[in-house]
Amino acid sequence: MSGRGRLIALEGVDGCGKSTQARLLADALGALATAEPGATQLGATLRRLVLDPGLPPVSDRAEALLVAADRAQHVSEVVLPALEEGRWVVTDRFSASTLAYQGYGRGLDLGELRRLVSWAAAGVAPDLTVVLDVPVAVARERLDLDTAGADRLERLDAGFHERVRAGYLALADADPGTWAVLDAAGDVAAVARQVMAVVVERLAPLPTVTR
Amino acid sequence: MSGRGRLIALEGVDGCGKSTQARLLADALGALATAEPGATQLGATLRRLVLDPGLPPVSDRAEALLVAADRAQHVSEVVLPALEEGRWVVTDRFSASTLAYQGYGRGLDLGELRRLVSWAAAGVAPDLTVVLDVPVAVARERLDLDTAGADRLERLDAGFHERVRAGYLALADADPGTWAVLDAAGDVAAVARQVMAVVVERLAPLPTVTR
Repeated sequence: MSGRGRLIALEGVDGCGKSTQARLLADALGALATAEPGATQLGATLRRLVLDPGLPPVSDRAEALLVAADRAQHVSEVVLPALEEGRWVVTDRFSASTLAYQGYGRGLDLGELRRLVSWAAAGVAPDLTVVLDVPVAVARERLDLDTAGADRLERLDAGFHERVRAGYLALADADPGTWAVLDAAGDVAAVARQVMAVVVERLAPLPTVTR
Repeated sequence: MSGRGRLIALEGVDGCGKSTQARLLADALGALATAEPGATQLGATLRRLVLDPGLPPVSDRAEALLVAADRAQHVSEVVLPALEEGRWVVTDRFSASTLAYQGYGRGLDLGELRRLVSWAAAGVAPDLTVVLDVPVAVARERLDLDTAGADRLERLDAGFHERVRAGYLALADADPGTWAVLDAAGDVAAVARQVMAVVVERLAPLPTVTR
């Protein structure tokens, strides 16, 4: 226990390497590793409703509200209790994903989405949001989209994912104090070193890791 | 086709007789009868997530976002297409339910909820909202809450439902131009006559019913 913990969000297009880097960072910091959507029991159902290509169609606003509902439950059940215990939390996606995917990607109004995500998260915002930036073609190659396993958002065309990537860069550009953009096209260990370097630079002192 | 149709919402605590009256009114007007939550395929799943007492817990904000997602899909798939064809639509619950249940009932901020429901409904608002007002004790007796069938909201204590009822009355009081409150403790036919009288008074001329 040493006051309130810190929240770090890793963001980027599908295939940028967020999940791997979030796990490595959480390990290095002794932080709680979590992810959106689907970290809670409710969220697992909502994740399926948003992403399963076999389920009924979801309007753009309903999609934004479902990911916001997933976030509200995630904050209330997982993120806020950990932060209040003084733990650091590393999340694979948070509010920025809604702005990038449903805002820049789907074209919903960014101002309205900002209010929505802030309210859903009960005002909880990351101390640092790290965008792992890779060209869309590289990310999509990593995803191996030829398989039948691609979800509803992954199946959207490259134009959608280009807008999402550009959205992340614009968001980071507008708020350099709490955002960082890293080139994530390199190998896993090199990207992990960059992630740790930016965390140290922005958020030191780091938590004491008990092993 | 005669321009845009009208939207009438029937509202009130569970057990006030909304569903029966919505059906009778829609029949009399030749209108589309619909209901929230659960009118769409997506909505049927969301309804269960919100109301099924056997499913995992849902935070207050997540609950509000789920009913808003249900409404967004309902408007996009059902309500707006009908209105745009010139049809009249009678819905058993709409945005006022979120203000009454999640606002007055759960205690979430009304100003934030108003923005949320308006955005979810893409600005679609009822031309007339009719509150069927009955004492909570009468409504709960009608529901036969001793059975195991009561949903998550119905199972809440009488204090919750008193706040919801008082909320409806406060909302109607603040916007008498598009709201009406009727005493719905009488028999079905008497209440149906009152409902039709207020619809005629506020929204005439009525649509031509083809039988």
